[in-house]
Amino acid sequence: MNPRIKWLRNQLIPLKLDGIIVSNPINVRYLTGLTEEGTLIIAPKENVFITDGRYIESVNHKLTIDDEIIAYDSRELTKYDYEGFFMLDENVGFEESYLTYEKYKKYLHTYQVNLIETEGILENQRIVKDEEEYNSIKKACEITDKAFEYIIRNIKKGMTEKEVAFEIERFMILNGAEDRAFETIVASGENSSMPHAVPTDRVIQKGDIIQFDFGAKVNGYCSDFSRVVFVEEVKEEYKEVYNFVLDEQKRLKECLKDGSNIKTVIKDRETEYKLKNYQIMHAFGHGVGLEIHELPILRSAQDNILKENSIIAIEPGVYIPGKFGIRIEDTCRVTKKESESMTNSKRDYIIIKLA
Amino acid sequence: MNPRIKWLRNQLIPLKLDGIIVSNPINVRYLTGLTEEGTLIIAPKENVFITDGRYIESVNHKLTIDDEIIAYDSRELTKYDYEGFFMLDENVGFEESYLTYEKYKKYLHTYQVNLIETEGILENQRIVKDEEEYNSIKKACEITDKAFEYIIRNIKKGMTEKEVAFEIERFMILNGAEDRAFETIVASGENSSMPHAVPTDRVIQKGDIIQFDFGAKVNGYCSDFSRVVFVEEVKEEYKEVYNFVLDEQKRLKECLKDGSNIKTVIKDRETEYKLKNYQIMHAFGHGVGLEIHELPILRSAQDNILKENSIIAIEPGVYIPGKFGIRIEDTCRVTKKESESMTNSKRDYIIIKLA
Repeated sequence: MNPRIKWLRNQLIPLKLDGIIVSNPINVRYLTGLTEEGTLIIAPKENVFITDGRYIESVNHKLTIDDEIIAYDSRELTKYDYEGFFMLDENVGFEESYLTYEKYKKYLHTYQVNLIETEGILENQRIVKDEEEYNSIKKACEITDKAFEYIIRNIKKGMTEKEVAFEIERFMILNGAEDRAFETIVASGENSSMPHAVPTDRVIQKGDIIQFDFGAKVNGYCSDFSRVVFVEEVKEEYKEVYNFVLDEQKRLKECLKDGSNIKTVIKDRETEYKLKNYQIMHAFGHGVGLEIHELPILRSAQDNILKENSIIAIEPGVYIPGKFGIRIEDTCRVTKKESESMTNSKRDYIIIKLA
Repeated sequence: MNPRIKWLRNQLIPLKLDGIIVSNPINVRYLTGLTEEGTLIIAPKENVFITDGRYIESVNHKLTIDDEIIAYDSRELTKYDYEGFFMLDENVGFEESYLTYEKYKKYLHTYQVNLIETEGILENQRIVKDEEEYNSIKKACEITDKAFEYIIRNIKKGMTEKEVAFEIERFMILNGAEDRAFETIVASGENSSMPHAVPTDRVIQKGDIIQFDFGAKVNGYCSDFSRVVFVEEVKEEYKEVYNFVLDEQKRLKECLKDGSNIKTVIKDRETEYKLKNYQIMHAFGHGVGLEIHELPILRSAQDNILKENSIIAIEPGVYIPGKFGIRIEDTCRVTKKESESMTNSKRDYIIIKLA
């Protein structure tokens, strides 16, 4: 049997679960490698993947005998088939943070079991990455660094945020990314004061800050990366904020290592922000993997211990409303010593000339 | 007050609801125009949008006095503020097809009200489009047609499916689309036999069918469009299937009009498929709007009456497992007479030469 499904089956025993229904497509992919829509049922006697006519051919093509997963087209299954996966009154786990209330009620009718919350069992398992996962993210990080190097040499006079964003995405796709990891952010001038700005038709100007935030996807795995660059000159008002954010990121990388308590580390950073009177507008970072935002979240509310080989994006930012914002972000691997950057573009002042 | 929120408030009266909590970001955008993350609370005495530090500046920038919506940063709200939006034991609607089971339980604690299912009240309202929505989709359709015309003239010897897909997306972005409507499908040769194929590194070959399925996004609104083209020649085996699919699409456009019962129309098409021994691999179409797949779904299970000014994608397809597939799709406006195509690329055999 597939080792991840074997692992999951072992987890069910102490939880006193007779099975689990996995509906979140990211968790299905993590367990099976399948990207097709469908529901994975880990039942006492079998592993079943229920898909539909659009996907059954491709699913059967991908699954091998070693997977020990039987695929069904949902049209071939009757009410009695569904009720037959589990015995009446068995305890079956479900993903309460993914399943809608409507589907929850439907599952109750369909499977005739006791549905039990599983509190992110799979999301928690996904925090620590194996070598294969690391390699995919590493590749995504390399493409991201190259795209950044490319774009800072190729911003021409008159280009808009949208055009710059598109050039980044084009470069990533043509250099080995299967997709962008998320919608690329290019926010210039005062637009940079909004942490989640969407690229606009604003033309890049002399004296601007440009905030970049983008990533690539490789084998389904994401990278996440932010830098600011300065157009033609670095205004004095930017320097203090830039240096503060960069120092904060360094401290975070030093402190976030195997065995650190996230709460303690982040509380210290929050104190520094308060001393400077800077508002904290978002978390200091987050896990990165098959999803761009995964566990753990780097917030002081998270009383969790960080583990080796977790992969996290570390992204402190400071935003001066209506004026500008600065965020520096790297995708990092947690080691026994530190959080080690996997994106390696330079972090000192980057000044570009508009050709 | 914003007219869509006014409409929603009027709907609450016959449903005996004291308010409604709107969590689905698409419905929030539909009601308010806001694209920022947050929850819209329609309470007896006020309309409230709860967002967080990442978005509060941009939300306050967009809302005007006429919207009559008060925006809060969630960090500024206490448990008592949340409990104060509604009175104890009031009946408050929620979106059971969007809200997760976990959030449902959290809402119960947070708002201290009776949460009542609303059965897609907003999704049903979104089916019929107003003139402004129509114009956005029309623009997306025009960009889509132009991208198709461009790509069939520009497929070069040696290009892979991925490269072709990327060229389509590049063309759309540089010609007025704010984004792709969904991940572009380019499936050549035997890959076309899978309705939801993902572009691969397969090189386009002489004798191939190429299945295209893509769309553009304008002001948040999508277009959806599919064609097949033949590389250098049309093999005999393709012709019968192509002509069948094209005839089916014509019949669907004739029959799907204001007042038609979807069930009756689709049942007839299913009979034609059975007579030919073709498998039905997916719905015959779906609504298109702020989401690429919206209501109504064109399936025989849908006992619904179609309404004028609904916008639907009509997409019959036939798939010969392991060999090839053919799907022809247009985004259409439902009129009193027919479903009128908004994508207008030609529908007879398109044969391309590899330059």
